[in-house]
Amino acid sequence: MIAPPRVGSEGGRLSGADRRFLARAIECGRSGWGRVHPNPMVGAVIVRGDEVLGEAFHAAYGGPHAEVSALAAVDNARGATLYCSLEPCNHHGKTAPCTGAILAAGVARVVFWAAEPGMEERGGAEWLCSRGLVVDGPFGKPSEWAAENPVFFHSASGGGPYLALKLAVSVDGRIAPPGGKRVWLTGEASRREVHRLRAGFDAILVGSRTWEADDPMLTVRGAVVPRVPPVAVLLDRCGRASPGLRALRRRSGPRPVVATAPDRAGDLDRALSGCADVVAVPVRGAGLDLAVLLEALGERGVTSVLCEGGGVLAASLLREGLVDRLYLLVAPVVIGERGVPAFPMGEPEERAPEAFRFKGWQSVIGPSRFGNDTLIVLDRGD
Amino acid sequence: MIAPPRVGSEGGRLSGADRRFLARAIECGRSGWGRVHPNPMVGAVIVRGDEVLGEAFHAAYGGPHAEVSALAAVDNARGATLYCSLEPCNHHGKTAPCTGAILAAGVARVVFWAAEPGMEERGGAEWLCSRGLVVDGPFGKPSEWAAENPVFFHSASGGGPYLALKLAVSVDGRIAPPGGKRVWLTGEASRREVHRLRAGFDAILVGSRTWEADDPMLTVRGAVVPRVPPVAVLLDRCGRASPGLRALRRRSGPRPVVATAPDRAGDLDRALSGCADVVAVPVRGAGLDLAVLLEALGERGVTSVLCEGGGVLAASLLREGLVDRLYLLVAPVVIGERGVPAFPMGEPEERAPEAFRFKGWQSVIGPSRFGNDTLIVLDRGD
Repeated sequence: MIAPPRVGSEGGRLSGADRRFLARAIECGRSGWGRVHPNPMVGAVIVRGDEVLGEAFHAAYGGPHAEVSALAAVDNARGATLYCSLEPCNHHGKTAPCTGAILAAGVARVVFWAAEPGMEERGGAEWLCSRGLVVDGPFGKPSEWAAENPVFFHSASGGGPYLALKLAVSVDGRIAPPGGKRVWLTGEASRREVHRLRAGFDAILVGSRTWEADDPMLTVRGAVVPRVPPVAVLLDRCGRASPGLRALRRRSGPRPVVATAPDRAGDLDRALSGCADVVAVPVRGAGLDLAVLLEALGERGVTSVLCEGGGVLAASLLREGLVDRLYLLVAPVVIGERGVPAFPMGEPEERAPEAFRFKGWQSVIGPSRFGNDTLIVLDRGD
Repeated sequence: MIAPPRVGSEGGRLSGADRRFLARAIECGRSGWGRVHPNPMVGAVIVRGDEVLGEAFHAAYGGPHAEVSALAAVDNARGATLYCSLEPCNHHGKTAPCTGAILAAGVARVVFWAAEPGMEERGGAEWLCSRGLVVDGPFGKPSEWAAENPVFFHSASGGGPYLALKLAVSVDGRIAPPGGKRVWLTGEASRREVHRLRAGFDAILVGSRTWEADDPMLTVRGAVVPRVPPVAVLLDRCGRASPGLRALRRRSGPRPVVATAPDRAGDLDRALSGCADVVAVPVRGAGLDLAVLLEALGERGVTSVLCEGGGVLAASLLREGLVDRLYLLVAPVVIGERGVPAFPMGEPEERAPEAFRFKGWQSVIGPSRFGNDTLIVLDRGD
């Protein structure tokens, strides 16, 4: 938290208690994962002195904002301080502006973490300040805000869907033993975490080797039930997918998408007989043009994609600079040199080791442990 | 913390406050890293009601124990609770037994985490209990105690030196680009952490490819100044080391050790002309017999060894089951398939993926982030 405050009659200096309550607001916000995207996860805590009067998080897309829910949970917020993880909105959208509710409740001070990026929604801090409230914020760096709310900040900056790549790897960077047979490298706790992650994305993408080898369901089967189940997206350059695939036999949720080369689209559409939408994507190099695919998904309303491999697709996405975040689950396992590499990306120049891939990638959150596995999260640098 | 208490008139049930203070005692103890080994790191916190009256850690090998230092920091401990990370000793060693000091101070209750493993030192809990104190402990699992104080618990169970292997790897499990040229994969924060780790070991071991390629100093150059600088141990099967190596030119600290094959020992001893102790170790396979080397180091008083690579030595140590702990620093870098592998261990059977190496290894502490790098700590399972 080092950026100077944009607003702030206390000079933006935060006490230890301020920092704790702000951290708590951020933590509260995380409970919205899977239920609010592409809206932001936001938490709010109302405090008088050292006492927490109430707290809340933005719990449902289109539902009340965290600030309003927190105010509703408190008998009397007069003279209290409101901590929130995002600048209160100043805009009539799906709900009335938070700023008005905060003013009406008699809150004396607002401390917020991330600046509102939306052109329409921003301005809340100035508005409250001009009404006589003490307003402190924003704090922290844009890369930290984006790490906490990646899809929201990515969407706010325009461009296509946000793409996260999840790979479960051995300590020697393999995703499967020789031959590519499906093996659980990671443990039960990691698999639960993957289901939790899936709940926060609009689409789950896999390459052809992965669905051919594993026949995954690509559904969310965890504690967090997503607001809208993510759409399964299968790459199928050669048009080999069949209606018997588990990802295509889903009874509920959005229709899966199978992306194929233009000259295969007609046959594949007939073969799949309506159990998936076939999307034709131009061929580029040995595979489909992934940037075009992402664009096509964006046009279908997809704001975020979680790619779950395999290695060939992962390498293509990385090589083409399409990966915004890498979720790397490292299992305490060695597979050996003949195993299937997670990063079959070709070689850097021997004389130019600075040409290593991932240069500039940042570790902004975590790491965390899931059983014996470690989750490393890397975000693309600015 | 799930093991039933051995002693404990409150049935071993810990309140939330108990757990917090016990965690604080463990945390305090960590400040002894590098200054007390092979003695344990121990912390103690004295509390009355919710107020911390004083805290301390075992700060110097042979110096006062944490419990006694904490009591000395408190005006009046009568009726207070003492939290400590290890069962108070009941033994006249380098210092008087802690149990007597605790009784004399009028402490009403003792809560401890790990059971004292030493045959002479143990019995403190029973002794205090028999004198009328409320005593709760031990809590937690032996694997957790050992994770916190690995060298101490390893030494207590007998056997040769404790061996930890540190490798800095890319996300694809490489330690260097093609050709093996030295490259900093990890960042400054990780390098500081490596110097901190070194301070807690009696010896730093490297293989011949590492000192030939990198000419490392193998000294501790960080914030923690070790009680005794670790001895540098170089593997040199072929007897090629020269007095010009930086690890052999140290002016202070213990004399380095160069391990070589018996038929090279005489020539090498002459070539090094007294700047290192040459130790002859039988050849086994393509290298030296590492178990015999560890035994020889143990006879020289070494209780713990940090091996810093390279990959060939790491693989041999792992293959022979000599590694007690793996410190894996993962840098956000991809090197590619032709890079130098961290685990050149040969292949598992294609049909027996359960034969993967590291089976049963546990992630008991961490992970932690150092800059953009992630430190994963794996302990050998029981």
